[in-house]
Amino acid sequence: MAGRHFLQIPGPTPVPDRLLRAMHRAMEDHRSSAFPALTRSILSRLPQVVHQTKGEPFVFPATGTAMWEAALVNTVNPGGRLLAVRFGQFSHLFIQTARALGYQVDVLEEPWGEVADPSRIEAALAADTAHEIQGVLLVHNETATGVTSDVAAVRAAIDRAKHPALLLVDGVSSIASLEFQFDAWGVDCAITGTQKGFMLPAGLGILYMSEKALARVDTCTMPRAYFDLRAMRANNAQGFFPSTPALSLLFGLDEALTMLLDEGMAAVAERHRFLANGVRAAVNAWGLRQCAKRPEIASNSLTAVMVPDGHDARQVIEIAFTRYDISLGSGLNEVAGKVFRIGHLGDTNSLTLAGALSGVEMALCDAGIPIMLGSGVGAALQQWRVGA
Amino acid sequence: MAGRHFLQIPGPTPVPDRLLRAMHRAMEDHRSSAFPALTRSILSRLPQVVHQTKGEPFVFPATGTAMWEAALVNTVNPGGRLLAVRFGQFSHLFIQTARALGYQVDVLEEPWGEVADPSRIEAALAADTAHEIQGVLLVHNETATGVTSDVAAVRAAIDRAKHPALLLVDGVSSIASLEFQFDAWGVDCAITGTQKGFMLPAGLGILYMSEKALARVDTCTMPRAYFDLRAMRANNAQGFFPSTPALSLLFGLDEALTMLLDEGMAAVAERHRFLANGVRAAVNAWGLRQCAKRPEIASNSLTAVMVPDGHDARQVIEIAFTRYDISLGSGLNEVAGKVFRIGHLGDTNSLTLAGALSGVEMALCDAGIPIMLGSGVGAALQQWRVGA
Amino acid sequence: MAGRHFLQIPGPTPVPDRLLRAMHRAMEDHRSSAFPALTRSILSRLPQVVHQTKGEPFVFPATGTAMWEAALVNTVNPGGRLLAVRFGQFSHLFIQTARALGYQVDVLEEPWGEVADPSRIEAALAADTAHEIQGVLLVHNETATGVTSDVAAVRAAIDRAKHPALLLVDGVSSIASLEFQFDAWGVDCAITGTQKGFMLPAGLGILYMSEKALARVDTCTMPRAYFDLRAMRANNAQGFFPSTPALSLLFGLDEALTMLLDEGMAAVAERHRFLANGVRAAVNAWGLRQCAKRPEIASNSLTAVMVPDGHDARQVIEIAFTRYDISLGSGLNEVAGKVFRIGHLGDTNSLTLAGALSGVEMALCDAGIPIMLGSGVGAALQQWRVGA
Amino acid sequence: MAGRHFLQIPGPTPVPDRLLRAMHRAMEDHRSSAFPALTRSILSRLPQVVHQTKGEPFVFPATGTAMWEAALVNTVNPGGRLLAVRFGQFSHLFIQTARALGYQVDVLEEPWGEVADPSRIEAALAADTAHEIQGVLLVHNETATGVTSDVAAVRAAIDRAKHPALLLVDGVSSIASLEFQFDAWGVDCAITGTQKGFMLPAGLGILYMSEKALARVDTCTMPRAYFDLRAMRANNAQGFFPSTPALSLLFGLDEALTMLLDEGMAAVAERHRFLANGVRAAVNAWGLRQCAKRPEIASNSLTAVMVPDGHDARQVIEIAFTRYDISLGSGLNEVAGKVFRIGHLGDTNSLTLAGALSGVEMALCDAGIPIMLGSGVGAALQQWRVGA
Repeated sequence: MAGRHFLQIPGPTPVPDRLLRAMHRAMEDHRSSAFPALTRSILSRLPQVVHQTKGEPFVFPATGTAMWEAALVNTVNPGGRLLAVRFGQFSHLFIQTARALGYQVDVLEEPWGEVADPSRIEAALAADTAHEIQGVLLVHNETATGVTSDVAAVRAAIDRAKHPALLLVDGVSSIASLEFQFDAWGVDCAITGTQKGFMLPAGLGILYMSEKALARVDTCTMPRAYFDLRAMRANNAQGFFPSTPALSLLFGLDEALTMLLDEGMAAVAERHRFLANGVRAAVNAWGLRQCAKRPEIASNSLTAVMVPDGHDARQVIEIAFTRYDISLGSGLNEVAGKVFRIGHLGDTNSLTLAGALSGVEMALCDAGIPIMLGSGVGAALQQWRVGA
Repeated sequence: MAGRHFLQIPGPTPVPDRLLRAMHRAMEDHRSSAFPALTRSILSRLPQVVHQTKGEPFVFPATGTAMWEAALVNTVNPGGRLLAVRFGQFSHLFIQTARALGYQVDVLEEPWGEVADPSRIEAALAADTAHEIQGVLLVHNETATGVTSDVAAVRAAIDRAKHPALLLVDGVSSIASLEFQFDAWGVDCAITGTQKGFMLPAGLGILYMSEKALARVDTCTMPRAYFDLRAMRANNAQGFFPSTPALSLLFGLDEALTMLLDEGMAAVAERHRFLANGVRAAVNAWGLRQCAKRPEIASNSLTAVMVPDGHDARQVIEIAFTRYDISLGSGLNEVAGKVFRIGHLGDTNSLTLAGALSGVEMALCDAGIPIMLGSGVGAALQQWRVGA
Repeated sequence: MAGRHFLQIPGPTPVPDRLLRAMHRAMEDHRSSAFPALTRSILSRLPQVVHQTKGEPFVFPATGTAMWEAALVNTVNPGGRLLAVRFGQFSHLFIQTARALGYQVDVLEEPWGEVADPSRIEAALAADTAHEIQGVLLVHNETATGVTSDVAAVRAAIDRAKHPALLLVDGVSSIASLEFQFDAWGVDCAITGTQKGFMLPAGLGILYMSEKALARVDTCTMPRAYFDLRAMRANNAQGFFPSTPALSLLFGLDEALTMLLDEGMAAVAERHRFLANGVRAAVNAWGLRQCAKRPEIASNSLTAVMVPDGHDARQVIEIAFTRYDISLGSGLNEVAGKVFRIGHLGDTNSLTLAGALSGVEMALCDAGIPIMLGSGVGAALQQWRVGA
Repeated sequence: MAGRHFLQIPGPTPVPDRLLRAMHRAMEDHRSSAFPALTRSILSRLPQVVHQTKGEPFVFPATGTAMWEAALVNTVNPGGRLLAVRFGQFSHLFIQTARALGYQVDVLEEPWGEVADPSRIEAALAADTAHEIQGVLLVHNETATGVTSDVAAVRAAIDRAKHPALLLVDGVSSIASLEFQFDAWGVDCAITGTQKGFMLPAGLGILYMSEKALARVDTCTMPRAYFDLRAMRANNAQGFFPSTPALSLLFGLDEALTMLLDEGMAAVAERHRFLANGVRAAVNAWGLRQCAKRPEIASNSLTAVMVPDGHDARQVIEIAFTRYDISLGSGLNEVAGKVFRIGHLGDTNSLTLAGALSGVEMALCDAGIPIMLGSGVGAALQQWRVGA
């Protein structure tokens, strides 16, 4: 097919040419006396992305979800008890990972399309008078359903319960796209990957640790090797990594940090809000519903759209892909076949999203879901023009 | 600005990543025993793009318009007389170039927005009973106004006049995009550059010569050096070039030929027709007129749109560029301020053009030209969906 | 500094431009119907690199050494007993990893500069009449000292002891450079990374599993998540990965496989032997000793050179780096300060190595280790010319 | 073949990765309001490379040698008389170009391997009492024979003759490598291309014009079009170009200027001198002669080496290319078969040149020219170590 593919899944996101160029580099000696400059450039700037002033960030050659494991095995002893909220596929997998590692997880179920309910978390923690629960697992932005939890409210709930549990937050599809206040929200572990807001290929996992979380690392008895932060910290302190770093991705991450911080994280979040408003206006104009059950929890990094009953969202996605050269995200697990997802995070803009919405419109019509061609795009443009 | 710029001028066109990669190559020795393989790969396949089976193609480090000079100085003796049709800025510049080189040019003026009139050419040649006129200069696709002349009809007119003049055709914005039948249309010199249908950066001029045109090269008395085909032919015959070739562009051209010929030139032309139909539907839906005075001469590689009286197209273009990160082509010379041009040639597709049309819609509104947002895009999608 | 840096460490190795280009690609939807073609292209060809016809290969976003953990946690139950040989820093770290994961490791110590002794392995296994030992950990090519163990002989020793232990082989600096006969040598788990013989940046770990090793995966009781092969196998079977794959590195790996298999693994191994002979001739000409205690165990992928007593190899390395723009490998642990290492694996050739040897010669002289300038290079050229 | 090709011809030179990346860019609208920033960045900094403070530089999509034509047709009227010195293939071709354009050229012949003799130039000009001679054509660095003329001495000769002729200097293989004092040497036209000291692919011609030369442009009666500086100047003044610029090369040129000026032109020249000294030491150690007849005229950008009588340099070059993957320059015209040329200009360093010399040594031996392997490299290293 001629022209550029429209990659509109909620990650990996389009890699800007500038970052592709930054990664197109000859390798270097990762043990040379010149190498620490790169390590420090990255590690000193990563915290600014999430407004972290205390604690430390870590970078692993791994996926973002591997950081679930890295966060847990460095802070929670074998068999430890955890509290989690499940309201989508990624909160589900976070729980599954914890259980696979041998932890006990108390699960608060919420309908998919809803978010974490701070009052239920407070109640569960208050009931744990023995303070057995060592951590609360929370997905900030549930990529499967397009909703954003209120992390600050969850922290407030923990505090109201006067519970010492750590707050472990999955920020895979929020960090570097949406506002993320690591310090102010009292987050202890925050995890993400490079393929979303950082606009890079997947391949690096990023883990932010608070001082409180770091204090547990040395005494944590969980057997661990690759994800052991002790070796990582010791090496990082000298500007190195314990094993051969994924250098091309580090070059890219260093440049991505420059792009993000030059724009400013508040501007980045505002840009995502602005673009999301247009996409939501299009969905409304089509007369379709979002998976998000309430407007105030709809995510600014992706929009999950429900197809009408009697239709299969997978057909829309396959038509979009094969006829119009656009990738949309599929519904997962409970919402499989019911939703398709439009990613609008990372390096994109209004005209690209207008093209994407155009592809969705044609695919919907082809799939027998009648909408007026141009109606969604027009509504989005109205939103974006107002914002111009 | 975040996201990808929309480059919607009628050339340079977006360079596909595949071609950027092909050009990202270490240099080679252009005199080595291995080098002729590249030269031959290019020169043997260039003719297929224009359905040329006789004569020869040439490649110069230069712009496409430099080939006007290359075609003339190798075939027309000093002070020679030429016949040309002027109906836009590029036909105007072709004439200016010929005059700058000392040739006498008889000009047939046509309104801008019209094309060459074969009957007038026939008449002019018939009147030249002494056969003084040595060449007819014709722009196939006038990039300034978005119209396409009928080259075959011009050839028929020359033949009806039984005139020996060469037919020199500017195919800058047609070759490798629109159908171009070098042999069947009896073209003698056809010229183009790399930055349009070949989807590359500018930097190479391409000149196709018929056997009849080549027969004039050795005896042509025009003083010339850089554009002298004698040195070029002698070197090309051995697989080399007379001076250091622009190697990265040659690497790109070789790969572009593979892309074009794998798709097939008929499919390339059909793809341009298909996409152009959608853009024209959008213009109609906006209630605006094209610069092309008749639908049957509207170009498939670009659309020149007239703004209503009292508006300045330059304002639309500047708003589009600064607010919506899209480049549109400006009106030139006689139509300056009256038209903006949307390029839809080269490596593009329907969703990209839907994004581009969205940008035009917002810019038109911002410039005070009232159109219903989404109306043009919707009309284009209707066209493209039908074609899917 | 002008010109190209000489990256002569034993990995990461220089990335050929062809592979950098292959990685310079837009991202794709890793869940699309088109994606499995890439997965299959890689997984179907990886086995050919090690002459594996049974079992399966796996690819993780991780370092090569992470595959130590992946191999162990999928095949050895918690607290299981292992036998290992330590003769350099990487065999040491393999042991440390196993212990960090809670395994008991019986260690056979060999002098650094020596290799595994099959007869001692045989004796240790024969003494384990209860067959408690579940696996034998062996480093094929010890990157720290520049020696290559005889894997086939170790397998023969295990067989003579009629012991059921798995044979787990670290092939980080051998696979895709030196001969590696997975089936014929009876290897059960072989691990490597992308940054050595595969000529790519680090970032992917590769794990080859025999049928015998795979049979243990489903019943292995070790808690594990990221490195759990069950999810990986289930996804791979459909052409997918359980989490977002490191796509740019996969693009590179796919192309690296084409390069390696087009050349042929026997030719690749022969090329490494040929180049290594020249480097060893240079070391001899300088009158210096290798860390390898016997010529027949000297590695073809790197050469570890001893500096004379009273000198510090780190000074040679730092001079080489800062004055002559060449990276050499450092001595590690027991041999720190005593050796510097010259990598000659991956994408290199005789002239590049001649340049590298030239840099070593100048650095040696500057460090006060008197050698005749040109003597080592001349000896290497003599070797390489003979081989031409 | 594995590893990196050694491109040791005197241009094109190796393109640094940084410049390849700079050229790997999406196209832009060359008529946009943002474009003039690029034009000005280039045109404002080009003069610093040659220490030009008056006059103007120009950039054409063309080869460097096309600038011979550009310089002449803008300053010398049809049939004008010129004085030139011929001492190698490029001074020969400069003359041929002038004659092809219809100029009369008085030629001072010098032996190949010698340079221009200022006293003969002075005499020739003094004899032209009518001041018919309009320009003196001089090649600064004769790429065919590896010698460097003394431009300042030629200017002094012209001044002593009190002759108004322009001084037109070919600086193709000197500008951006060797010292070039445009103002101080009283140069009127200086020409070069991008593929030598600018470290880029060929494809752009660069022409520097003095105020005196510029004063002739408007009144010069030579018919011309593509190379007409009037259109170029008018467009450049607004930050644009008269036809579509070769954008990827301009991106590269902009970055090359940053590299060169950051290093400093004096440092660039010194680096070339330093590296050339090593290469010349190698030639001496081999017992071979240079084409340059005197040491003080030997070029710092390349070394032309004579093979002993009875040998054919082309055989050395072909062996080097096919067996050792290194490109050497061939002898041209009068010195064909007698010399091979080693380029040492642009982005290179001592270790790369040591590798190149190693390739030459093996090729010489293979061709039956007995030299001691390592002897030349050792001599070069001795030179370079001293300089470290």
